[in-house]
Formats: sequence, structure tokens, C-alpha cells
Amino acid sequence: MAILVVGSVAFDAIETPSGRRDRCLGGAATHFSLAASYFTPVRVIGVVGEDFGSAEEAVFASRGIDTRGIEHVSGKSFFWCGSYMKNLNEAQTLNTELNVFQSFSPKIPTEYQDSEYLFLANIDPVLQADVRSRMPKVKMVCGDTMNYWIKDHAENLARVLKNLDALLINDGEAKMLAHDNNLVVAARKILAMGPKALVVKHGEYGATAFFGENAFPGEVCRTPFRAPALPLAEVVDPTGAGDSFAGGFFGYIASQPKLTSAVFRRAMFYGSVMGSFAVERFGTERLQQLEPQEIEDRFALFRQLSHLD
Amino acid sequence: MAILVVGSVAFDAIETPSGRRDRCLGGAATHFSLAASYFTPVRVIGVVGEDFGSAEEAVFASRGIDTRGIEHVSGKSFFWCGSYMKNLNEAQTLNTELNVFQSFSPKIPTEYQDSEYLFLANIDPVLQADVRSRMPKVKMVCGDTMNYWIKDHAENLARVLKNLDALLINDGEAKMLAHDNNLVVAARKILAMGPKALVVKHGEYGATAFFGENAFPGEVCRTPFRAPALPLAEVVDPTGAGDSFAGGFFGYIASQPKLTSAVFRRAMFYGSVMGSFAVERFGTERLQQLEPQEIEDRFALFRQLSHLD
Repeated sequence: MAILVVGSVAFDAIETPSGRRDRCLGGAATHFSLAASYFTPVRVIGVVGEDFGSAEEAVFASRGIDTRGIEHVSGKSFFWCGSYMKNLNEAQTLNTELNVFQSFSPKIPTEYQDSEYLFLANIDPVLQADVRSRMPKVKMVCGDTMNYWIKDHAENLARVLKNLDALLINDGEAKMLAHDNNLVVAARKILAMGPKALVVKHGEYGATAFFGENAFPGEVCRTPFRAPALPLAEVVDPTGAGDSFAGGFFGYIASQPKLTSAVFRRAMFYGSVMGSFAVERFGTERLQQLEPQEIEDRFALFRQLSHLD
Repeated sequence: MAILVVGSVAFDAIETPSGRRDRCLGGAATHFSLAASYFTPVRVIGVVGEDFGSAEEAVFASRGIDTRGIEHVSGKSFFWCGSYMKNLNEAQTLNTELNVFQSFSPKIPTEYQDSEYLFLANIDPVLQADVRSRMPKVKMVCGDTMNYWIKDHAENLARVLKNLDALLINDGEAKMLAHDNNLVVAARKILAMGPKALVVKHGEYGATAFFGENAFPGEVCRTPFRAPALPLAEVVDPTGAGDSFAGGFFGYIASQPKLTSAVFRRAMFYGSVMGSFAVERFGTERLQQLEPQEIEDRFALFRQLSHLD
């Protein structure tokens, strides 16, 4: 079933030990939707400027992604410039130009109203809550956020968390959100804020899911679940790995008839699979041209990497 | 079959957010042998001072560990004082007194000569090589080391690595040893130095094993293997977690008729299991009083934590 994603569509300038790109298509909604598109229909809500042209449109079109919700306005698209020269695990932001994103006011096309799955990528929690409230019939809502909103927009974020089925953030964000340095304690506190499940991303070490009592209808799952990341000899560009994880994760869930703990676990693996592809090339290059068989082969590799038999 | 371990037997003073102990039994060989003792007979070579008395002897005896190789000399035992108040993932050493350990010259009792498995805990690589050369008939040799030996005793360490079946170190040590920040590349370089397998410990994120072409007789295993660590709400004392991992890992291997990749994978899980118990209490308190069923239950929990079905 269709996923609706709201978030940034942007241009990135990226420098890593493997090279540099002065301008590549990026943004959380872009990475997410490309990754999810291998599993389920995807619809995007975002805003772009006049620099977003047919070449960029074609990237979404080639994956059958519905972009009727991407608003085109005058001005320049969101632009981010970052470097991973010092640390491949953490981007150093050199420049951020919000441009048209600064006055982003999400509009939901009528054709999107029947979306059953909603992903609130990392944007202002006020906008996240607004989109959520205008999609009252969605079956499942997942969301992301970042240190900036956790630190300075806590009350707005709290309103979003109350209604989330799953929150996907990284270690540092989880600890900051819970004001606790122990991940298990932090997870308990975050689940008490509202999300039925919490997925904490550990970068090269994979991701861990924690579940609330009500995570799965008719099923109690107390054991966390840890999906590995693939040890890679070269991480070309880590940008968008987390959003690609989210896309694989939520795309797989949306492709399944029912959310069970078994589906959630497999979704964690598909998230890791899509994250592992994303970092193999700059920007969205790798996610634009995957074959379904490559995804299944890598899923099998993840199983081999982590399973006893 | 019997494992022979050579390494430190010590007293530790430890401070963590959960409390403090002014004097508890510690040392790499102690943690290792207690953990391994749940799987296979263990024999220890080490040196202690006059402060090592019947209470300490009883700890080893209660687990059936052969201590005839622990030499008693006049003076004080190795003493280490550390704090985890700033960071539970990394000890801050406040004081180290080598004492009788300074002039440690391992002696191998005749009764130990038929040991089929040898673990070279973290000591001077000259001593590691010496013990190794005096046990020519062992079936499998694993070893540990640390940044100090990697940095300032590289040539001596290289001689040890040449003849190792498996090296067990942590991320930072692996990257330092290989002069490379990418773990996969570092692993390749380290395997080229001699070890047939490399186990890299990631603390709270588990451990990853990398295999050389010749790791398993008649079997090629190219896929690394990642074992998770158990997310714990309270890490009481991380001291000895790595040695307990090594004990569970090697103890399980020594208990099996043959080393296969399947046995190695299960050994990684048993390593993680014993590491997870070790940190639940101060020093060796938890490892002194485990029930076999507790170990099997936790093994099952690790499977649930990481397996799709």
C-alpha cells in the first residue's frame, strides 16, 4: 500500500575521502522515497525551487514515485554542503541554505488522501504534526527528527511523538531526547513519550528496535531486535544512509498485509540492506538503479552475517 | 578439551556509576578462565603475590580451574585501579602497580603439556611467543593484545600474530594495528599478518569476526559474522567483559569435537553471552555463580535478539 512521505528535497555538495560532488540530488524525502520505491508505491510532499528541473524529476519518475505533492516555487531549492573528511560517521556541515524550504507549508494533494502509511521525515515538528492531523485515516505513522528539534523545540516534538507508531533516530539523538546515557533506559523513556516502537540507528554497527507493550496488535514482544550493518571496505558517501534505512524499513512494512513482530524484524533487515546500498555511491546514485534480485541477494547476505544457521 | 590460559591474575579497585570496590579479584586470566570453565576444563599460568590467599584460591577451585600453574612469589600481586565514571565504554586508569607481574616468567607445569587449546591473554608478546613455542602440539591458539604492545612492541607482536588461529581485539586496537580506519580493510591487513581469523569487539554493539581463506579446514567462509551484545539497562562494571567474551568464545570451541564455521559462529554468541553476564556485577562476582541453564537461556535470548525467525 502507498506510503506518503513529507520532507526535504534538496541539492547536496558532498566531500568524502572517496571524492566530491558539487551538486547531487539529495534530501531526506528523496533518499527515503527512492529506497521505499523498491517495495511499495511512494508519494512525496516537499518543496523545490527553479533549479529542480527535468533531470531531477526523471530520477523520481524512473522509480514510479508520485511527485504531484512536490511544490515548485520561485527561488532556489534547499542546499546542503557537508564534509566527511574528518569522520565518515559524522557529517561536518559546511553550509546550509534553506532557500525555498524556509517557508515550506506542506500541501496534501487530494490524490494522496488515501495513503495508508505516512513517514514524517526530519522537518519542523510543527509541520510534522500538521500533516499528521490532516491524514486522520492512516494506518501507521513513522517519523524521524534531529538534535536541533530535540533541543530547542521539545514541546512541539512531544506532540508528534504522542501519535507515532515508530520513531527512527540515532544513538545520540535517543540519549539526548531521553536525557539518559544508557540506551535501554533511554528507550524506555522514549516509548513512554508515545511511540509504540523505537528504532535506534548505530551507523556502522546496525540498528536496535525497542518495543512498547502495544507495538503489535494481539502480540507482546519484550525482546529488542538488533539488525547488523554490512561491514564495507569503502563507504563512498554516508549521506542519506539513515533515510534509506527508513525507506527500506517502512517500504517493506507497507508491502505486507499486516504488521507483526516478524514483519518488523524483516523490515529492520531491509532497512539495513537499503542503507548498505546507499553508501556505496555518492548521493542517490546507487538507489536509482537497483535490481530486485540485488536486494534479495543482499538480504540473504545479512542473514548469513548474523544468523547461526 | 583443556584450555591453557596465560595472563594476569590481579586485584582491581574499580569505580563505576553503580558503585565502587576497593579490592576485587581480577586480571585477564581470571575473567577468561572463569568464563571458559562453564564449557571446558581450564588451566591457568600466572603469578601472584602473598596477598593472594585462600579466598582467591577458592574462587578458582569452586569452578574446578587448575591453578597449579599460578606461581606464588613474595611481594604483592598485580594491582589495577580504574574508573568508569566518565565513560562506561572506556576505563580511565588511575593507577597500575605491576608488582610481582613485572618479572613474570611463565612456567608450564608438566601436567599442562597435553593442553590442546592455548589462550595468550594480553601480556608482553615476548612472553606470549615463548609460551606458544613451548606448546608445539596445541591444536588451536587464540590471543589478545592491547594498544601498548601494538604501538611500542610491533616486531615482537608480529611474531605472535604469525602463529595465531584467532586474534581477539577491539575496534581501536584493530585500526591501530592495521594503520587503517576502515574495519574491513583493517581486518584484511591483520589477517595478512598471520591470524586465520580476527574477532573485533565493539563493546555495547557486539563483535564481528573476519575469516582468512584457511580459517576452517575444507571450508571457505568469506562472509564475516556479527554477534550482537545484549542491550542492558545497567552495566555495573565493564571490567573483564572482553576477557569473559574470549573465555566463553574459546571455551565453547574447546568443548566441540571440531572447529567449523558453524561452531565459530556459536562461539561468538557464547562469548557475547559470557560478556553480558560479566558486566552485571562487579569484578568476577557474576561469573562465579552461573547456572548452566542461565547460560542456555541467555543464548536463546541472543538468538531472539538477532534472528529473523
